[in-house]
Amino acid sequence: MNPDRIQIFVTGGTFDKEYNEITGELFFQKTHIADMLRLGRCLLDVDIETLMMIDSLQMTEAHRQLILERCAHSPAARIVITHGTDTMGQTAAVLGAGIAAKTIVVTGAMVPYTFRSSDGLFNLGTALAFVQNLEHGVYVAMNGRCFPWHSVRKNRERGVFEALGGSQV
Amino acid sequence: MNPDRIQIFVTGGTFDKEYNEITGELFFQKTHIADMLRLGRCLLDVDIETLMMIDSLQMTEAHRQLILERCAHSPAARIVITHGTDTMGQTAAVLGAGIAAKTIVVTGAMVPYTFRSSDGLFNLGTALAFVQNLEHGVYVAMNGRCFPWHSVRKNRERGVFEALGGSQV
Amino acid sequence: MNPDRIQIFVTGGTFDKEYNEITGELFFQKTHIADMLRLGRCLLDVDIETLMMIDSLQMTEAHRQLILERCAHSPAARIVITHGTDTMGQTAAVLGAGIAAKTIVVTGAMVPYTFRSSDGLFNLGTALAFVQNLEHGVYVAMNGRCFPWHSVRKNRERGVFEALGGSQV
Amino acid sequence: MNPDRIQIFVTGGTFDKEYNEITGELFFQKTHIADMLRLGRCLLDVDIETLMMIDSLQMTEAHRQLILERCAHSPAARIVITHGTDTMGQTAAVLGAGIAAKTIVVTGAMVPYTFRSSDGLFNLGTALAFVQNLEHGVYVAMNGRCFPWHSVRKNRERGVFEALGGSQV
Repeated sequence: MNPDRIQIFVTGGTFDKEYNEITGELFFQKTHIADMLRLGRCLLDVDIETLMMIDSLQMTEAHRQLILERCAHSPAARIVITHGTDTMGQTAAVLGAGIAAKTIVVTGAMVPYTFRSSDGLFNLGTALAFVQNLEHGVYVAMNGRCFPWHSVRKNRERGVFEALGGSQV
Repeated sequence: MNPDRIQIFVTGGTFDKEYNEITGELFFQKTHIADMLRLGRCLLDVDIETLMMIDSLQMTEAHRQLILERCAHSPAARIVITHGTDTMGQTAAVLGAGIAAKTIVVTGAMVPYTFRSSDGLFNLGTALAFVQNLEHGVYVAMNGRCFPWHSVRKNRERGVFEALGGSQV
Repeated sequence: MNPDRIQIFVTGGTFDKEYNEITGELFFQKTHIADMLRLGRCLLDVDIETLMMIDSLQMTEAHRQLILERCAHSPAARIVITHGTDTMGQTAAVLGAGIAAKTIVVTGAMVPYTFRSSDGLFNLGTALAFVQNLEHGVYVAMNGRCFPWHSVRKNRERGVFEALGGSQV
Repeated sequence: MNPDRIQIFVTGGTFDKEYNEITGELFFQKTHIADMLRLGRCLLDVDIETLMMIDSLQMTEAHRQLILERCAHSPAARIVITHGTDTMGQTAAVLGAGIAAKTIVVTGAMVPYTFRSSDGLFNLGTALAFVQNLEHGVYVAMNGRCFPWHSVRKNRERGVFEALGGSQV
């Protein structure tokens, strides 16, 4: 892979949930990232790879080690990861502790892309922009903002991401 | 206005076009930026002001001088401008020649936000991210990319933005 | 109420499910029927009343008796009921056995209106058209078709409604 | 063709207009009827044929004669025609004067299907329901209502269809 290419790793999360008409439940089928990039007329050189398709509450340490390994071994210096919002911070922390010489932006959505009211396309836009210009480090991009991995938390009551100690990028 | 606030100046363009059910024509009513930021669950501190609502092909030097003046006098150091794509580069050039100490990102859409197939939300996301991290200068953000004002052109046949001389940011 | 008015009774079902951003689950908030009629530029004289907001799998005999009573006592001779698809046929049967002198059309959706891929607006259109022209009786309107209450079943494997014995209207 | 099949004739109109990203104008490409029926999970036996793709203001007597001929010679007894709203009534009048033994419903949209705010899916639902149950005759279906061809007019100021002399079906 061209090292200038941006690697997009898909892990599932609210982002990619769909409605199963037969069971009436939300489930994972395939990622919508390629469709979303087409909608955004995105001309960045990206490679999309699905590592897993799971709820981030079901993500184990083994899953996180796999993501870490794949980021470490990717030829890309700039990586965007789509991820469930509930444990986004934990995965960012594993990556932040393990990888120094890449720019990694983790993003997600509060509402699946399949809903009219999804924030997914906006978030994907911000993540792809942040990853192009931020210095090496691991970040979480949500709500139009970007936070370093060590100073972000999800406020579960309000459903938004906040800086710990005012250290927003 | 808080100088840390991001100023969003609206000038019209494809971005904000709507369908007039009575005449069957596209027209301008009001900007959709606030709705789009709500959809993106955006928590950035922004101020939205509509300077004009026109097609960028109808933009005169007087319009561009007004935009320049408003950017120069804004307390904000970071400004996003929504603009029609046809003359986006010309306006960026006027701003680039006139303003040195701010980060200004001009963006737009190939398809109005009111269409299901709009790239607007994606572009707005990228512009708001780019404006937070780029050094002082004037840029055009389209197709997921960001170009300095002096090295971008719209390829009208393909409907995309390209770097002049490979100088993409 | 004007007896020429069409009564719309809302009972919940997939039709009106929304995404709870905090819990990540589907839930009921309020009905989208008024929004949908506005989208359809519908000028029929209708009265919308929410009787309950539940999954049709949770509908008890008491719920069905309430619906029956409200239909019987409504001044309207033409009634549309939005309902979950799983037990739509059972409710239609209760109404069919209990009410002879009205035209009642039960409809629903396979995918909530809040999803881009919803069939809700189409189904609502068919139900409102069927109710205007069918003779007295109780019907289920799904998949563009209309079935008398006594000869319809939901094919759960395929997620579609079928005639029992070929007796589609 | 199976005579029980419903024939859908496409003639263009607002219904099928799309946005040309290169020119910034609305234009016709191909009809969205098949996509819309898929969205509606429609299981009616239909045949879709595009007769023309034009603005109804550009429709000439020759176009109307072609539509009349195709309706007359279709094996189908039930026909839905999608049509621009501006001269919908004129085409309905030509068909009403020329065809007695079929049920024909003309419908359209005030806002193209490609816009988020389109009434197209709702109208298509009503038209397909009306055509199944109305007696032989030619009708216009808009705003949730159905009008006989000889007693309908478009109120251009308000953008809605009205009965002439209160003779709504």
